[in-house]
Amino acid sequence: MTPKSQKHWNGDASTLLRATGGFRLDRVDADASPGYGRRKRDAVADLVAGADELSELQERLYASARGGTSEASVLLILQAMDTAGKGGIVRHVVGSVDPQGVQLTAFKKPTPEELAHDFLWRVRPQAPAPGMIGVFDRSHYEDVLIGKVRSLAPEEEIERRYGAIVDFEKELTDAGTHIVKVMLHISAHEQRDRLMDRLDRPDKHWKYNPDDVDERKLWPDYMKAYQSVFERTSTANAPWYVVPANHKWYARLAVQSLLLNALLEIDPRWPAASFDVAAERERLRAT
Amino acid sequence: MTPKSQKHWNGDASTLLRATGGFRLDRVDADASPGYGRRKRDAVADLVAGADELSELQERLYASARGGTSEASVLLILQAMDTAGKGGIVRHVVGSVDPQGVQLTAFKKPTPEELAHDFLWRVRPQAPAPGMIGVFDRSHYEDVLIGKVRSLAPEEEIERRYGAIVDFEKELTDAGTHIVKVMLHISAHEQRDRLMDRLDRPDKHWKYNPDDVDERKLWPDYMKAYQSVFERTSTANAPWYVVPANHKWYARLAVQSLLLNALLEIDPRWPAASFDVAAERERLRAT
Repeated sequence: MTPKSQKHWNGDASTLLRATGGFRLDRVDADASPGYGRRKRDAVADLVAGADELSELQERLYASARGGTSEASVLLILQAMDTAGKGGIVRHVVGSVDPQGVQLTAFKKPTPEELAHDFLWRVRPQAPAPGMIGVFDRSHYEDVLIGKVRSLAPEEEIERRYGAIVDFEKELTDAGTHIVKVMLHISAHEQRDRLMDRLDRPDKHWKYNPDDVDERKLWPDYMKAYQSVFERTSTANAPWYVVPANHKWYARLAVQSLLLNALLEIDPRWPAASFDVAAERERLRAT
Repeated sequence: MTPKSQKHWNGDASTLLRATGGFRLDRVDADASPGYGRRKRDAVADLVAGADELSELQERLYASARGGTSEASVLLILQAMDTAGKGGIVRHVVGSVDPQGVQLTAFKKPTPEELAHDFLWRVRPQAPAPGMIGVFDRSHYEDVLIGKVRSLAPEEEIERRYGAIVDFEKELTDAGTHIVKVMLHISAHEQRDRLMDRLDRPDKHWKYNPDDVDERKLWPDYMKAYQSVFERTSTANAPWYVVPANHKWYARLAVQSLLLNALLEIDPRWPAASFDVAAERERLRAT
């Protein structure tokens, strides 16, 4: 099924961006806009149209859980190098639906308490409730990304985690959660421009962290770690999508499209009344 | 200070809607639009302009807390009879700012565990962190509203709670939280129309609850309980605002205006860089 708002696409984002089979991150052009034949100006209008559609589907999803007719939920997992635009996705894509239907979790550097537990300990309680759209801004994947690149855990433990993640996500999808895993992919050059912009603007200084430059120096290691993530954890029930993100307008449109597809797959319905409508009309009239 | 977006107001919402002194709820006209001389069409445009202003102020608030220059936060408390439009405020007013800066809590009927504790036990942990806009969809006021009307607690306990609420809110404001307490005020007639609309539309059935009619029968008791709330808990540091809400466009504009005023009072500033900008530019260029 194709979302009505996607008339300018000449392909399905879920197919075009899926990182399965012989996927190679180093062959992805971060400047590209696969499947979308138009330009920025059209993309802005299409994003607005898609927001309306997403908003209605979200309300149906929420209603169907409240009405007890469905246990379905959506979980959007966002991973990316710094400045790739996770915040913009949350603001401009997720932000277009009713905040009452969204469970947003930003995973920061683990606390000592969190480190004392298994890496999934802090993640499990944040899984979305039925009817909700959960969003992970960073996630358990940090534990096999920075965890691997910075050797924060022994190699065997990193290996174990790939399997643990696949099992965990299988549990979630079995319970009715549609998982949409997105890596926003920018080029190293684009990241330098964006970091420089933060340094040039006093209203962006608060977003700049000197550690970002240290991480940036490990760019090739991070790309290798992402490649391993795709090879080890991109499953049929929870595939990875790699979204070229040098153009913010494309990344937003593409993630919106992936969310629309997930919701159309769920196809949530308005629940039937659990009460006698005619009788309630009478009761209400009498007040 | 007047928000730029409020050029069509002929008075300050914070002054006009404040429930202090000899305030009498039974004298409020739910159809009125105090301070706003225009009609629905202008209100829609003004709401968009206000959303941009609110959005920028919210980002500054968030940044100032992240930068360690301020501990300030905002807490919007929403109370109302059913169908008065709390959800619409969350969707159309709060929903216009970055979801990453919002902490939304919907207080439902207390669980047995919650009932085993003091009434503020479940509320305290939901107070907004520095830099955040907290929103309570219902709140501790339920414990002196339905709590009083339905005699869910002894009279002495209800009496004690007014004082406990005043103390609790004083703690919050002393710690830098600007509290905006809003009662959305609709007429009983308007509520009947809105409930009837939910019965007439299958896509709204899920929002209808037969209990709403039972509560509706106690309308005069609820109005008395609200009147007591205003008399006992509308303090200088945390005043109540009663917003006529028969016109949704007015209620949204008015609550937006109250939030804008709270943020302008905080006047959050972009934090200064905690690093050497020139040195970071060099480091970044070298990568």
